[in-house]
Amino acid sequence: VEIRSQGPVEAARKGAKAVLIRSVTNFAFRQPHTGATRYVDDVRKIPAAAIPPEDVMMLARMQARKMPVKLRLVLGAKTLPDRQSANAIGELRGREKPEEVVVIGCHIDSWDVGDGSTDDGSGCIMAMEAARMLKAAKLVPRRTIRVVLFTNEENGLRGGQAYAEAHAEEVHAAAIESDSGSGAPWGLGVVASEEQVAALRVYAPLFDPLGAGAIHVGHGGADISPLTRRGVLSLSVRPDGSHYFDLHHSPADTVDKISPAHLQHNSAAMALMAYILAEREEITTIATEKEGDDHR
Amino acid sequence: VEIRSQGPVEAARKGAKAVLIRSVTNFAFRQPHTGATRYVDDVRKIPAAAIPPEDVMMLARMQARKMPVKLRLVLGAKTLPDRQSANAIGELRGREKPEEVVVIGCHIDSWDVGDGSTDDGSGCIMAMEAARMLKAAKLVPRRTIRVVLFTNEENGLRGGQAYAEAHAEEVHAAAIESDSGSGAPWGLGVVASEEQVAALRVYAPLFDPLGAGAIHVGHGGADISPLTRRGVLSLSVRPDGSHYFDLHHSPADTVDKISPAHLQHNSAAMALMAYILAEREEITTIATEKEGDDHR
Repeated sequence: VEIRSQGPVEAARKGAKAVLIRSVTNFAFRQPHTGATRYVDDVRKIPAAAIPPEDVMMLARMQARKMPVKLRLVLGAKTLPDRQSANAIGELRGREKPEEVVVIGCHIDSWDVGDGSTDDGSGCIMAMEAARMLKAAKLVPRRTIRVVLFTNEENGLRGGQAYAEAHAEEVHAAAIESDSGSGAPWGLGVVASEEQVAALRVYAPLFDPLGAGAIHVGHGGADISPLTRRGVLSLSVRPDGSHYFDLHHSPADTVDKISPAHLQHNSAAMALMAYILAEREEITTIATEKEGDDHR
Repeated sequence: VEIRSQGPVEAARKGAKAVLIRSVTNFAFRQPHTGATRYVDDVRKIPAAAIPPEDVMMLARMQARKMPVKLRLVLGAKTLPDRQSANAIGELRGREKPEEVVVIGCHIDSWDVGDGSTDDGSGCIMAMEAARMLKAAKLVPRRTIRVVLFTNEENGLRGGQAYAEAHAEEVHAAAIESDSGSGAPWGLGVVASEEQVAALRVYAPLFDPLGAGAIHVGHGGADISPLTRRGVLSLSVRPDGSHYFDLHHSPADTVDKISPAHLQHNSAAMALMAYILAEREEITTIATEKEGDDHR
């Protein structure tokens, strides 16, 4: 992903007229995959695009045969003026310490080439469904569980930043983001030390029936990364990701690719971890040099 | 495929304004799959198009929810004037009966949304490679083996028809077409009676090391179907077709999908069967009510 986001700046520094990359995907079906590109003020902004892997392979074959390759780029992308958007928030109020919060979240925006079901519609369903499951089971934990559907992850992370700023005074016991699609359940990543993760791993047997028992040192999430940087214990729902980048940011990211069963089990894993973190006695604070994941 | 080719006529007869079908594929990655549509003179010609399966699923969901569905079709397809084209033909002349011919063929045209490597570039490579293999092995069979790359299969079958007319006076001992992609080798289909196929099946052990021992009552090919109708023993190279329609007539039909190993083994199977049919004593003639396959 860095090749896409940082490529134009690096290439412009070396005198390139434009950047064309192989789409960030591990599966080719002649679809281009879009995504954010970053420019910086003191470097010339050059055109940048991603093309399907098949076309990249063709260009590479032509080049290997010393055939002349001449490209004409016709790009339609535009940066439109900013518009107001909003995070969507709902809560299960805690029974003893309602002022202490466990965030469960996702991002509600998506690239509009598909419908964004995998990135990150499925994460939003999980967060909402996790709260619904707890409510349906009449489980009211000690602390508040707050569902946050963050806006603008793909294009600036301003939903995550605005949330962290607006709620800076609150005690966040933990934050769990789901932004890795809804493949078969596997586990949860935790931004924490080995010892802190081991303390959570004692709960793994509860997750095993869901297939989500792999509680491991790993990533948080882009939207919760401002919380992570403030020392909030950050986790991510991590399903099997083998096919995540097949769909990621492509026209093929549509709802038919979502397995309802996987979605349900991942939701349950999120609900269970949120409940544990909202219920257990102590609050874990992480070393602030740790950072969240950001695979835009 | 009949839904695509015959749909517009059937729908127009029932008063439809246009026809929109689910692309003819068993695998959805948000690609439309093109192909021939047939009109008849006495029925109104209505617009027709195929859309990706994902979009069909969305429309179906909308309809199931009684949401109003209104579509505006903007179609770019045109029928341009005919241009001269040609079959490409090469021969391995027979040593005893050069006037008797075994055709091995494919079609050289393709839909231009992809590069046509699966439909039917791989078949053309097989036919040429089969002849090259025999030549390299210094095998000169009794009869002539003729490689024919037929033109215009996709849009009228005129290459196949022109061949059959131009060579109507010649003795054709057999014809083998490869137009089913180049999946893992499986076998050869034969348009013939059970007894006639059994007589060929005695050679199956020679094909087994290639994975192509399934010699079975099956199809011939679209381009050789005019020969089939004249009683010529007709065969097809039939690899595993599980993924054939994933690519068929779509932008994803590109050369990177071709396995060189499968291509080589399928070529060898074609070479071997061509050699057997060009070498064996008798010529098998089939009942002319049998017809070739045409899965355009």
